Amino acid sequence: MIIGKNIWAIPEGYITAWSNGPAPEFTSHEAACILNTGDADAHIELTIFFADREPAGPYLIEVKARRTKHIRFNELTEPEKIPLGTSYSSLFVSDVPVISQHTRLDSRQSENALITTIAYAE
Amino acid sequence: MIIGKNIWAIPEGYITAWSNGPAPEFTSHEAACILNTGDADAHIELTIFFADREPAGPYLIEVKARRTKHIRFNELTEPEKIPLGTSYSSLFVSDVPVISQHTRLDSRQSENALITTIAYAE
Amino acid sequence: MIIGKNIWAIPEGYITAWSNGPAPEFTSHEAACILNTGDADAHIELTIFFADREPAGPYLIEVKARRTKHIRFNELTEPEKIPLGTSYSSLFVSDVPVISQHTRLDSRQSENALITTIAYAE
Amino acid sequence: MIIGKNIWAIPEGYITAWSNGPAPEFTSHEAACILNTGDADAHIELTIFFADREPAGPYLIEVKARRTKHIRFNELTEPEKIPLGTSYSSLFVSDVPVISQHTRLDSRQSENALITTIAYAE
Repeated sequence: MIIGKNIWAIPEGYITAWSNGPAPEFTSHEAACILNTGDADAHIELTIFFADREPAGPYLIEVKARRTKHIRFNELTEPEKIPLGTSYSSLFVSDVPVISQHTRLDSRQSENALITTIAYAE
Repeated sequence: MIIGKNIWAIPEGYITAWSNGPAPEFTSHEAACILNTGDADAHIELTIFFADREPAGPYLIEVKARRTKHIRFNELTEPEKIPLGTSYSSLFVSDVPVISQHTRLDSRQSENALITTIAYAE
Repeated sequence: MIIGKNIWAIPEGYITAWSNGPAPEFTSHEAACILNTGDADAHIELTIFFADREPAGPYLIEVKARRTKHIRFNELTEPEKIPLGTSYSSLFVSDVPVISQHTRLDSRQSENALITTIAYAE
Repeated sequence: MIIGKNIWAIPEGYITAWSNGPAPEFTSHEAACILNTGDADAHIELTIFFADREPAGPYLIEVKARRTKHIRFNELTEPEKIPLGTSYSSLFVSDVPVISQHTRLDSRQSENALITTIAYAE
Protein backbone atom coordinates (compact mmCIF):
# COMPACT_ATOMS: atom_id res chain seq x y z
CA MET A 1 0.00 0.00 0.00
CA ILE A 2 1.27 3.45 -0.85
CA ILE A 3 -0.17 6.55 0.75
CA GLY A 4 0.76 10.20 1.04
CA LYS A 5 1.21 13.27 -1.11
CA ASN A 6 3.89 14.51 -3.49
CA ILE A 7 4.25 18.06 -2.14
CA TRP A 8 4.92 19.03 1.47
CA ALA A 9 5.71 22.36 3.07
CA ILE A 10 6.98 23.39 6.53
CA PRO A 11 6.88 27.18 7.04
CA GLU A 12 8.68 27.15 10.40
CA GLY A 13 12.38 26.35 10.59
CA TYR A 14 15.29 27.55 12.70
CA ILE A 15 18.72 26.12 13.45
CA THR A 16 20.30 27.60 16.57
CA ALA A 17 23.50 29.52 16.02
CA TRP A 18 25.04 28.25 19.22
CA SER A 19 24.68 25.43 21.70
CA ASN A 20 24.91 24.94 25.45
CA GLY A 21 26.93 21.75 25.47
CA PRO A 22 29.24 19.41 23.57
CA ALA A 23 28.34 18.44 20.02
CA PRO A 24 26.63 16.49 18.69
CA GLU A 25 24.48 15.81 21.72
CA PHE A 26 23.46 19.42 22.17
CA THR A 27 23.28 20.33 18.50
CA SER A 28 19.90 21.52 17.26
CA HIS A 29 18.01 18.77 15.47
CA GLU A 30 15.45 20.59 13.41
CA ALA A 31 14.18 17.77 11.23
CA ALA A 32 11.64 16.54 8.76
CA CYS A 33 10.73 12.91 9.16
CA ILE A 34 9.69 11.39 5.84
CA LEU A 35 7.88 8.07 5.43
CA ASN A 36 7.78 6.21 2.13
CA THR A 37 5.26 3.35 2.40
CA GLY A 38 5.50 2.39 -1.27
CA ASP A 39 7.56 -0.08 -3.24
CA ALA A 40 9.46 2.55 -5.24
CA ASP A 41 12.27 4.76 -3.93
CA ALA A 42 11.28 8.40 -3.45
CA HIS A 43 13.42 11.11 -5.04
CA ILE A 44 12.77 14.44 -3.38
CA GLU A 45 13.80 17.96 -4.31
CA LEU A 46 13.97 20.20 -1.25
CA THR A 47 13.90 23.99 -1.59
CA ILE A 48 14.70 26.29 1.35
CA PHE A 49 13.00 29.71 1.54
CA PHE A 50 14.23 32.70 3.55
CA ALA A 51 12.90 36.06 4.72
CA ASP A 52 15.29 38.24 2.77
CA ARG A 53 17.03 36.36 -0.03
CA GLU A 54 16.25 34.04 -2.93
CA PRO A 55 15.60 30.36 -2.09
CA ALA A 56 18.41 27.80 -1.79
CA GLY A 57 18.41 24.42 -3.46
CA PRO A 58 17.32 22.11 -4.73
CA TYR A 59 18.71 19.67 -2.19
CA LEU A 60 18.38 16.09 -3.45
CA ILE A 61 17.07 13.52 -0.98
CA GLU A 62 16.28 9.86 -1.45
CA VAL A 63 13.98 7.82 0.77
CA LYS A 64 14.12 4.15 -0.13
CA ALA A 65 11.02 2.04 -0.66
CA ARG A 66 9.33 0.97 2.59
CA ARG A 67 11.70 3.12 4.64
CA THR A 68 11.58 6.20 6.84
CA LYS A 69 14.22 8.95 6.96
CA HIS A 70 15.06 11.90 9.21
CA ILE A 71 16.20 14.92 7.23
CA ARG A 72 18.25 17.01 9.65
CA PHE A 73 18.45 20.48 8.22
CA ASN A 74 21.80 21.28 9.83
CA GLU A 75 23.37 18.34 7.97
CA LEU A 76 22.43 19.57 4.49
CA THR A 77 25.51 20.78 2.62
CA GLU A 78 24.80 20.66 -1.13
CA PRO A 79 24.35 23.06 -2.85
CA GLU A 80 24.97 25.14 0.32
CA LYS A 81 24.65 24.92 4.10
CA ILE A 82 21.58 26.46 5.71
CA PRO A 83 22.71 29.52 7.67
CA LEU A 84 22.49 29.27 11.47
CA GLY A 85 20.36 31.61 13.54
CA THR A 86 18.11 32.32 10.57
CA SER A 87 14.45 31.53 10.03
CA TYR A 88 13.68 29.46 6.96
CA SER A 89 10.87 27.43 5.38
CA SER A 90 11.09 24.17 3.46
CA LEU A 91 9.29 22.76 0.43
CA PHE A 92 9.54 19.07 -0.52
CA VAL A 93 8.56 17.84 -4.00
CA SER A 94 8.68 14.04 -4.35
CA ASP A 95 8.25 11.83 -7.43
CA VAL A 96 6.17 9.34 -5.40
CA PRO A 97 3.74 9.93 -2.52
CA VAL A 98 5.35 10.29 0.92
CA ILE A 99 4.31 11.62 4.33
CA SER A 100 6.22 14.32 6.18
CA GLN A 101 6.23 15.36 9.82
CA HIS A 102 8.07 18.38 11.21
CA THR A 103 10.01 17.80 14.43
CA ARG A 104 12.56 19.58 16.54
CA LEU A 105 14.34 16.65 18.07
CA ASP A 106 15.86 16.65 21.50
CA SER A 107 18.79 14.29 21.35
CA ARG A 108 18.36 13.58 25.03
CA GLN A 109 14.67 12.77 24.55
CA SER A 110 13.61 14.47 27.76
CA GLU A 111 10.95 12.48 29.59
CA ASN A 112 9.22 15.71 30.55
CA ALA A 113 8.40 16.76 27.03
CA LEU A 114 4.87 16.59 25.75
CA ILE A 115 4.23 16.65 22.03
CA THR A 116 1.11 16.07 20.02
CA THR A 117 -0.27 16.32 16.51
CA ILE A 118 -3.17 14.89 14.58
CA ALA A 119 -1.76 12.13 12.38
CA TYR A 120 -1.89 12.19 8.58
CA ALA A 121 -5.15 10.71 7.24
CA GLU A 122 -6.21 9.39 3.90
CA MET B 1 -22.37 9.32 14.15
CA ILE B 2 -19.19 7.88 12.74
CA ILE B 3 -16.37 10.07 11.51
CA GLY B 4 -12.75 9.63 10.57
CA LYS B 5 -10.58 7.90 8.01
CA ASN B 6 -9.41 4.33 7.47
CA ILE B 7 -5.71 5.03 6.93
CA TRP B 8 -3.43 6.98 9.26
CA ALA B 9 0.31 7.54 9.27
CA ILE B 10 2.78 8.94 11.82
CA PRO B 11 6.26 9.42 10.35
CA GLU B 12 7.95 10.35 13.66
CA GLY B 13 8.47 7.73 16.35
CA TYR B 14 11.17 7.03 18.91
CA ILE B 15 11.25 4.96 22.10
CA THR B 16 14.11 5.92 24.41
CA ALA B 17 16.67 3.23 25.06
CA TRP B 18 17.11 4.20 28.66
CA SER B 19 15.30 6.06 31.40
CA ASN B 20 16.17 8.39 34.24
CA GLY B 21 14.01 6.84 36.92
CA PRO B 22 12.03 3.83 38.09
CA ALA B 23 9.70 2.12 35.62
CA PRO B 24 6.97 2.46 34.62
CA GLU B 25 6.68 6.07 35.71
CA PHE B 26 9.70 7.21 33.74
CA THR B 27 9.26 4.90 30.79
CA SER B 28 8.81 6.58 27.43
CA HIS B 29 5.17 6.74 26.39
CA GLU B 30 5.29 7.29 22.67
CA ALA B 31 1.66 6.70 21.79
CA ALA B 32 -1.07 6.91 19.21
CA CYS B 33 -4.46 7.79 20.61
CA ILE B 34 -7.23 6.29 18.48
CA LEU B 35 -10.89 7.31 18.68
CA ASN B 36 -13.67 5.12 17.30
CA THR B 37 -16.91 7.12 17.31
CA GLY B 38 -18.90 4.45 15.46
CA ASP B 39 -21.10 1.56 16.51
CA ALA B 40 -18.82 -1.15 15.11
CA ASP B 41 -15.52 -2.30 16.62
CA ALA B 42 -12.44 -1.19 14.67
CA HIS B 43 -9.88 -3.82 13.65
CA ILE B 44 -6.59 -2.15 12.83
CA GLU B 45 -3.44 -3.48 11.21
CA LEU B 46 -0.38 -1.50 12.30
CA THR B 47 2.85 -1.63 10.30
CA ILE B 48 6.12 -0.19 11.65
CA PHE B 49 8.67 1.24 9.20
CA PHE B 50 12.38 1.74 9.87
CA ALA B 51 15.32 3.57 8.32
CA ASP B 52 17.39 0.55 7.43
CA ARG B 53 15.35 -2.66 7.49
CA GLU B 54 12.08 -4.09 6.18
CA PRO B 55 8.87 -3.11 8.03
CA ALA B 56 7.60 -5.02 11.07
CA GLY B 57 4.05 -6.21 11.52
CA PRO B 58 1.24 -6.30 11.10
CA TYR B 59 0.37 -5.66 14.73
CA LEU B 60 -3.34 -6.32 15.36
CA ILE B 61 -5.22 -3.72 17.39
CA GLU B 62 -8.89 -3.51 18.29
CA VAL B 63 -10.69 -0.35 19.33
CA LYS B 64 -14.20 -1.14 20.51
CA ALA B 65 -17.25 0.76 19.29
CA ARG B 66 -17.66 4.20 20.94
CA ARG B 67 -14.30 3.86 22.71
CA THR B 68 -10.88 5.48 22.68
CA LYS B 69 -7.57 3.66 23.05
CA HIS B 70 -3.94 4.60 23.67
CA ILE B 71 -1.55 2.47 21.64
CA ARG B 72 1.76 2.62 23.51
CA PHE B 73 4.43 1.56 21.07
CA ASN B 74 6.75 0.18 23.77
CA GLU B 75 4.03 -2.27 24.82
CA LEU B 76 3.66 -3.90 21.39
CA THR B 77 5.12 -7.42 21.43
CA GLU B 78 3.55 -9.44 18.59
CA PRO B 79 4.97 -10.21 16.07
CA GLU B 80 8.05 -8.50 17.59
CA LYS B 81 9.00 -5.72 20.00
CA ILE B 82 9.90 -2.34 18.53
CA PRO B 83 13.64 -1.82 19.09
CA LEU B 84 14.60 0.91 21.58
CA GLY B 85 16.68 3.92 20.60
CA THR B 86 15.61 3.60 16.98
CA SER B 87 13.55 5.93 14.81
CA TYR B 88 10.45 4.39 13.29
CA SER B 89 7.22 5.35 11.52
CA SER B 90 3.78 3.85 11.88
CA LEU B 91 0.94 3.12 9.46
CA PHE B 92 -2.55 2.23 10.67
CA VAL B 93 -5.12 0.59 8.38
CA SER B 94 -8.56 0.21 9.94
CA ASP B 95 -11.69 -1.58 8.69
CA VAL B 96 -13.89 1.29 9.93
CA PRO B 97 -13.20 5.02 10.12
CA VAL B 98 -11.24 6.15 13.18
CA ILE B 99 -9.25 9.26 14.20
CA SER B 100 -5.64 9.12 15.33
CA GLN B 101 -3.50 11.59 17.25
CA HIS B 102 0.23 11.22 17.88
CA THR B 103 1.40 11.96 21.41
CA ARG B 104 4.47 11.51 23.50
CA LEU B 105 2.99 11.15 26.93
CA ASP B 106 4.61 12.42 30.07
CA SER B 107 3.44 10.14 32.83
CA ARG B 108 3.92 12.94 35.30
CA GLN B 109 1.86 15.34 33.18
CA SER B 110 4.10 18.31 33.85
CA GLU B 111 2.12 21.49 34.41
CA ASN B 112 4.69 23.46 32.48
CA ALA B 113 4.16 21.68 29.21
CA LEU B 114 2.38 23.40 26.36
CA ILE B 115 1.01 21.33 23.52
CA THR B 116 -1.17 22.25 20.61
CA THR B 117 -2.56 20.91 17.37
CA ILE B 118 -5.39 21.75 15.04
CA ALA B 119 -8.11 19.17 15.67
CA TYR B 120 -9.36 16.71 13.06
CA ALA B 121 -12.17 18.18 10.94
CA GLU B 122 -14.77 16.68 8.68
CA MET C 1 -16.68 35.52 5.91
CA ILE C 2 -17.40 32.19 7.55
CA ILE C 3 -14.96 29.33 7.40
CA GLY C 4 -14.49 26.00 9.14
CA LYS C 5 -16.16 22.65 9.52
CA ASN C 6 -19.12 21.35 11.51
CA ILE C 7 -17.48 18.27 13.02
CA TRP C 8 -14.24 18.20 15.01
CA ALA C 9 -12.54 15.45 16.97
CA ILE C 10 -9.65 15.39 19.48
CA PRO C 11 -8.58 11.83 20.35
CA GLU C 12 -6.12 12.84 23.10
CA GLY C 13 -7.37 14.21 26.39
CA TYR C 14 -6.28 13.93 30.01
CA ILE C 15 -7.04 15.99 33.11
CA THR C 16 -4.48 15.46 35.89
CA ALA C 17 -5.83 13.96 39.08
CA TRP C 18 -3.61 16.11 41.24
CA SER C 19 -1.65 19.33 41.09
CA ASN C 20 1.66 20.64 42.37
CA GLY C 21 0.50 24.01 43.59
CA PRO C 22 -2.41 26.23 44.58
CA ALA C 23 -5.53 26.25 42.42
CA PRO C 24 -6.46 27.58 39.98
CA GLU C 25 -2.99 28.55 38.84
CA PHE C 26 -1.67 25.02 38.81
CA THR C 27 -4.84 23.31 37.68
CA SER C 28 -4.60 21.40 34.43
CA HIS C 29 -5.98 23.40 31.52
CA GLU C 30 -6.71 20.82 28.88
CA ALA C 31 -8.70 22.90 26.42
CA ALA C 32 -10.26 23.17 23.01
CA CYS C 33 -10.12 26.63 21.52
CA ILE C 34 -13.04 27.23 19.17
CA LEU C 35 -13.28 30.07 16.67
CA ASN C 36 -16.57 31.14 15.12
CA THR C 37 -15.84 33.59 12.27
CA GLY C 38 -19.46 33.76 11.10
CA ASP C 39 -22.40 36.05 11.83
CA ALA C 40 -24.52 33.36 13.51
CA ASP C 41 -23.97 31.92 16.99
CA ALA C 42 -22.63 28.36 17.02
CA HIS C 43 -24.45 25.73 19.07
CA ILE C 44 -22.19 22.78 19.72
CA GLU C 45 -22.87 19.33 21.12
CA LEU C 46 -19.78 17.85 22.74
CA THR C 47 -19.50 14.11 23.39
CA ILE C 48 -16.74 12.63 25.56
CA PHE C 49 -15.44 9.13 24.78
CA PHE C 50 -13.58 6.86 27.20
CA ALA C 51 -11.53 3.67 27.07
CA ASP C 52 -13.85 1.49 29.11
CA ARG C 53 -17.34 2.98 29.42
CA GLU C 54 -20.08 4.47 27.27
CA PRO C 55 -19.63 8.10 26.15
CA ALA C 56 -20.72 11.06 28.29
CA GLY C 57 -22.78 13.97 27.03
CA PRO C 58 -23.90 15.76 25.12
CA TYR C 59 -22.42 18.87 26.70
CA LEU C 60 -23.99 22.00 25.24
CA ILE C 61 -21.64 24.81 24.25
CA GLU C 62 -22.34 28.14 22.60
CA VAL C 63 -19.78 30.22 20.74
CA LYS C 64 -21.22 33.59 19.81
CA ALA C 65 -20.93 35.06 16.31
CA ARG C 66 -17.47 36.52 15.57
CA ARG C 67 -16.11 35.24 18.88
CA THR C 68 -13.57 32.73 20.14
CA LYS C 69 -13.98 30.51 23.19
CA HIS C 70 -11.76 28.27 25.32
CA ILE C 71 -13.54 25.09 26.38
CA ARG C 72 -11.71 23.90 29.52
CA PHE C 73 -12.61 20.27 29.97
CA ASN C 74 -12.19 20.35 33.77
CA GLU C 75 -14.89 23.02 33.97
CA LEU C 76 -17.59 20.95 32.25
CA THR C 77 -20.23 19.85 34.76
CA GLU C 78 -23.45 19.06 32.87
CA PRO C 79 -24.50 16.30 32.43
CA GLU C 80 -21.49 15.07 34.47
CA LYS C 81 -17.94 16.05 35.34
CA ILE C 82 -15.13 14.44 33.35
CA PRO C 83 -13.28 12.08 35.68
CA LEU C 84 -9.73 13.10 36.64
CA GLY C 85 -6.70 10.96 35.83
CA THR C 86 -8.53 9.30 32.95
CA SER C 87 -7.86 9.40 29.23
CA TYR C 88 -10.72 10.63 27.10
CA SER C 89 -11.50 11.83 23.57
CA SER C 90 -13.83 14.59 22.45
CA LEU C 91 -16.19 15.04 19.50
CA PHE C 92 -17.71 18.43 18.65
CA VAL C 93 -20.75 18.73 16.37
CA SER C 94 -21.68 22.34 15.55
CA ASP C 95 -24.70 23.74 13.70
CA VAL C 96 -22.47 26.27 11.90
CA PRO C 97 -18.85 25.96 10.71
CA VAL C 98 -16.22 26.59 13.36
CA ILE C 99 -12.50 25.88 13.78
CA SER C 100 -11.06 23.96 16.71
CA GLN C 101 -7.55 23.72 18.12
CA HIS C 102 -6.46 21.38 20.91
CA THR C 103 -4.26 22.92 23.59
CA ARG C 104 -2.97 22.05 27.00
CA LEU C 105 -2.62 25.46 28.53
CA ASP C 106 0.05 26.41 30.99
CA SER C 107 -1.49 29.07 33.18
CA ARG C 108 1.96 30.50 33.76
CA GLN C 109 2.70 30.61 30.03
CA SER C 110 6.29 29.49 30.44
CA GLU C 111 8.64 31.40 28.19
CA ASN C 112 10.60 28.25 27.55
CA ALA C 113 7.79 26.37 25.90
CA LEU C 114 7.82 25.74 22.18
CA ILE C 115 4.62 24.81 20.43
CA THR C 116 3.78 24.45 16.79
CA THR C 117 1.05 23.26 14.45
CA ILE C 118 0.12 23.80 10.85
CA ALA C 119 -2.84 26.20 10.85
CA TYR C 120 -6.29 25.32 9.52
CA ALA C 121 -6.59 25.97 5.78
CA GLU C 122 -9.50 26.37 3.41
CA MET D 1 5.69 26.20 -8.20
CA ILE D 2 3.05 27.78 -6.02
CA ILE D 3 1.23 25.82 -3.37
CA GLY D 4 -1.00 26.58 -0.40
CA LYS D 5 -4.39 28.04 0.40
CA ASN D 6 -5.85 31.53 0.55
CA ILE D 7 -7.54 31.31 3.95
CA TRP D 8 -5.90 30.26 7.21
CA ALA D 9 -7.14 30.27 10.78
CA ILE D 10 -5.45 29.83 14.17
CA PRO D 11 -7.96 29.57 17.04
CA GLU D 12 -5.37 29.63 19.84
CA GLY D 13 -3.48 32.82 20.63
CA TYR D 14 -2.18 34.44 23.79
CA ILE D 15 0.43 37.14 24.44
CA THR D 16 1.71 37.13 28.02
CA ALA D 17 1.01 40.25 30.03
CA TRP D 18 4.35 40.13 31.76
CA SER D 19 7.78 38.66 31.32
CA ASN D 20 10.47 37.13 33.51
CA GLY D 21 13.47 38.84 32.01
CA PRO D 22 14.79 41.71 29.93
CA ALA D 23 13.06 42.52 26.65
CA PRO D 24 13.13 41.55 23.89
CA GLU D 25 14.76 38.26 24.73
CA PHE D 26 12.09 37.18 27.16
CA THR D 27 9.16 38.73 25.35
CA SER D 28 6.47 36.32 24.24
CA HIS D 29 6.81 35.42 20.57
CA GLU D 30 3.43 34.12 19.62
CA ALA D 31 3.81 33.96 15.86
CA ALA D 32 2.42 32.81 12.55
CA CYS D 33 5.05 31.76 10.06
CA ILE D 34 3.86 32.33 6.50
CA LEU D 35 5.49 30.85 3.41
CA ASN D 36 4.86 32.25 -0.06
CA THR D 37 6.33 29.84 -2.64
CA GLY D 38 4.93 31.73 -5.63
CA ASP D 39 6.25 34.42 -7.95
CA ALA D 40 3.72 37.07 -6.86
CA ASP D 41 3.78 39.00 -3.59
CA ALA D 42 1.06 37.97 -1.13
CA HIS D 43 -1.20 40.64 0.35
CA ILE D 44 -2.86 39.37 3.49
CA GLU D 45 -5.67 40.77 5.60
CA LEU D 46 -5.45 39.56 9.18
CA THR D 47 -8.47 39.73 11.50
CA ILE D 48 -8.17 39.12 15.26
CA PHE D 49 -11.11 37.58 17.13
CA PHE D 50 -11.73 37.81 20.87
CA ALA D 51 -13.93 36.15 23.50
CA ASP D 52 -15.94 39.19 24.47
CA ARG D 53 -15.64 41.99 21.90
CA GLU D 54 -15.91 42.60 18.17
CA PRO D 55 -12.91 41.57 16.03
CA ALA D 56 -9.94 43.88 15.42
CA GLY D 57 -8.45 44.59 12.03
CA PRO D 58 -7.85 44.16 9.28
CA TYR D 59 -4.10 44.20 9.76
CA LEU D 60 -2.31 44.43 6.41
CA ILE D 61 0.62 42.07 5.87
CA GLU D 62 2.80 41.52 2.82
CA VAL D 63 4.86 38.41 2.16
CA LYS D 64 7.08 38.90 -0.87
CA ALA D 65 7.32 36.34 -3.67
CA ARG D 66 9.50 33.33 -2.77
CA ARG D 67 9.89 34.54 0.79
CA THR D 68 8.89 33.47 4.30
CA LYS D 69 7.79 35.81 7.09
CA HIS D 70 7.22 35.56 10.84
CA ILE D 71 4.18 37.54 11.94
CA ARG D 72 4.75 38.29 15.64
CA PHE D 73 1.39 39.18 17.08
CA ASN D 74 2.85 41.44 19.79
CA GLU D 75 4.42 43.63 17.10
CA LEU D 76 1.14 44.41 15.33
CA THR D 77 0.14 48.04 15.92
CA GLU D 78 -2.25 49.13 13.14
CA PRO D 79 -5.19 49.55 13.48
CA GLU D 80 -4.62 48.70 17.17
CA LYS D 81 -2.31 46.68 19.42
CA ILE D 82 -3.48 43.23 20.50
CA PRO D 83 -4.21 43.39 24.24
CA LEU D 84 -1.84 41.44 26.52
CA GLY D 85 -3.03 38.62 28.77
CA THR D 86 -6.04 38.01 26.54
CA SER D 87 -6.96 34.99 24.45
CA TYR D 88 -7.50 35.69 20.77
CA SER D 89 -7.85 33.90 17.43
CA SER D 90 -6.52 34.91 14.04
CA LEU D 91 -7.85 34.67 10.47
CA PHE D 92 -5.62 35.26 7.45
CA VAL D 93 -7.08 35.98 3.99
CA SER D 94 -4.46 36.17 1.24
CA ASP D 95 -4.79 37.16 -2.42
CA VAL D 96 -2.43 34.34 -3.46
CA PRO D 97 -1.94 30.86 -1.96
CA VAL D 98 0.36 30.73 1.08
CA ILE D 99 1.07 28.26 3.89
CA SER D 100 0.79 29.16 7.57
CA GLN D 101 2.16 27.51 10.68
CA HIS D 102 1.37 28.55 14.24
CA THR D 103 4.33 28.76 16.61
CA ARG D 104 5.09 30.10 20.04
CA LEU D 105 8.73 30.94 19.68
CA ASP D 106 11.24 30.65 22.46
CA SER D 107 13.83 33.30 21.78
CA ARG D 108 16.38 31.19 23.59
CA GLN D 109 15.50 28.11 21.51
CA SER D 110 15.84 25.70 24.40
CA GLU D 111 17.55 22.49 23.37
CA ASN D 112 15.18 20.53 25.57
CA ALA D 113 12.06 21.46 23.72
CA LEU D 114 10.30 18.93 21.55
CA ILE D 115 7.84 20.09 18.95
CA THR D 116 6.06 18.25 16.20
CA THR D 117 3.34 18.65 13.60
CA ILE D 118 2.33 16.94 10.41
CA ALA D 119 3.50 19.17 7.55
CA TYR D 120 1.16 20.79 5.04
CA ALA D 121 0.41 18.50 2.08
CA GLU D 122 -0.95 19.07 -1.38
